[in-house]
Amino acid sequence: MPNPTAAMLVIGDEILSGRTRDANMHFLAGELTKHGVDLREVRVVSDDADAIVEAVDTLRGRFDHVFTSGGIGPTHDDITADCIARAFDAPIDVRDDAREILQAHYDRQGTQINEARLRMARIPEGATLIDNPVSAAPGFTLGNVHVMAGVPQVFQAMVASVLPTITGGDPVLSQTLRIERGEGDIAAPLRELAEAHPDLSFGSYPYIRDGVFGVNVVIRGTDGAALDAAMQRLADAFPGATE
Amino acid sequence: MPNPTAAMLVIGDEILSGRTRDANMHFLAGELTKHGVDLREVRVVSDDADAIVEAVDTLRGRFDHVFTSGGIGPTHDDITADCIARAFDAPIDVRDDAREILQAHYDRQGTQINEARLRMARIPEGATLIDNPVSAAPGFTLGNVHVMAGVPQVFQAMVASVLPTITGGDPVLSQTLRIERGEGDIAAPLRELAEAHPDLSFGSYPYIRDGVFGVNVVIRGTDGAALDAAMQRLADAFPGATE
Repeated sequence: MPNPTAAMLVIGDEILSGRTRDANMHFLAGELTKHGVDLREVRVVSDDADAIVEAVDTLRGRFDHVFTSGGIGPTHDDITADCIARAFDAPIDVRDDAREILQAHYDRQGTQINEARLRMARIPEGATLIDNPVSAAPGFTLGNVHVMAGVPQVFQAMVASVLPTITGGDPVLSQTLRIERGEGDIAAPLRELAEAHPDLSFGSYPYIRDGVFGVNVVIRGTDGAALDAAMQRLADAFPGATE
Repeated sequence: MPNPTAAMLVIGDEILSGRTRDANMHFLAGELTKHGVDLREVRVVSDDADAIVEAVDTLRGRFDHVFTSGGIGPTHDDITADCIARAFDAPIDVRDDAREILQAHYDRQGTQINEARLRMARIPEGATLIDNPVSAAPGFTLGNVHVMAGVPQVFQAMVASVLPTITGGDPVLSQTLRIERGEGDIAAPLRELAEAHPDLSFGSYPYIRDGVFGVNVVIRGTDGAALDAAMQRLADAFPGATE
């Protein structure tokens, strides 16, 4: 059975303006790969309701899971929860279970819960809360869409809460061979190897380090023995390369 | 006149598998902001022809410019140029101008140009070449789509070649105030400020540092004086915050 598929939707002007370098995509990509879920597409959109709704709608129809990051805080630019509700045509309001979590958290801190903070208890009807051990305000799962915070520490904690609820496939294994040759030198043997191993995927990632051109060849697949065999053939073809 | 809009398409399994952390998105976002071009959306897709063609087709119809990174090297997984040709229904083959550039480069290096390397001279009919001062193999612009390499050094050099050919708008200025308060404390005054300054954009980016919650409030706009005035009001509301 093929592995389940996923897409990610990053919501936030700060990434698109170049102010912030996104960290959540790279983190989620690694976690999904370990969990046997194929991340097939990522989209980054701004804090614009129409753009968010359209992306959620397209992606949730195309992939088994959609993970979103960003836009679930208390400020005016946090519109993700309402957009998800709109995409699902689900009612949304402050929900008792979410409010209780926030109330307990702010009581412990001796902080007043105010109108802005209450916005974080707006959860669409039918959604399951995602635990946030860092700052309490929960994420939620509605259908196949998992809605999480943008702050990396909170995002990562929410991913840890969500992943065990998702049935993964076979973890995708990978091996890398670093070859200090131009990509043009390895292209022909690599193409032959890829054709001989249709169940594995062969990626060629050129780099320039201290002015020297080289390539990282990455072989990926779920069958460890097949991976070993292909890697051996590649290493034989390029003696001196480094695994 | 509003600033021109743009989207970016990152092509590459290595980002989606979590092997590589993308660097080009953050770089391009910063350069476009300086150039007065609004980056509105980024998509990351795998080395899959249908996914690339569909994304290019959608994005080029929606935005003034599309910038792609990745997939224009000599190996079997480099399929971007052919996908762009397909999206534009343009013929593609090895083009003399591109071949001459490669030939001169490999002659200088004393390297044979082989069949794989010649793939990098495959350029759609009607495209303008983008100069690559790092490793010679050119990118190209077809219509409003700018096709560039994925290796960061080459991508950056190509962006430097392309940007002067694009009419930008007013550079978007930004100022940041760091406030060591929970986001829930600043939400109400921030919303009021945002409503009073509809021409500026107000973003609120929470962070956790050494266990302390804080917020970076970023005000953005093209009118420097309006920006200064709004920032002053914000700073007055939160004495002790750091610009």
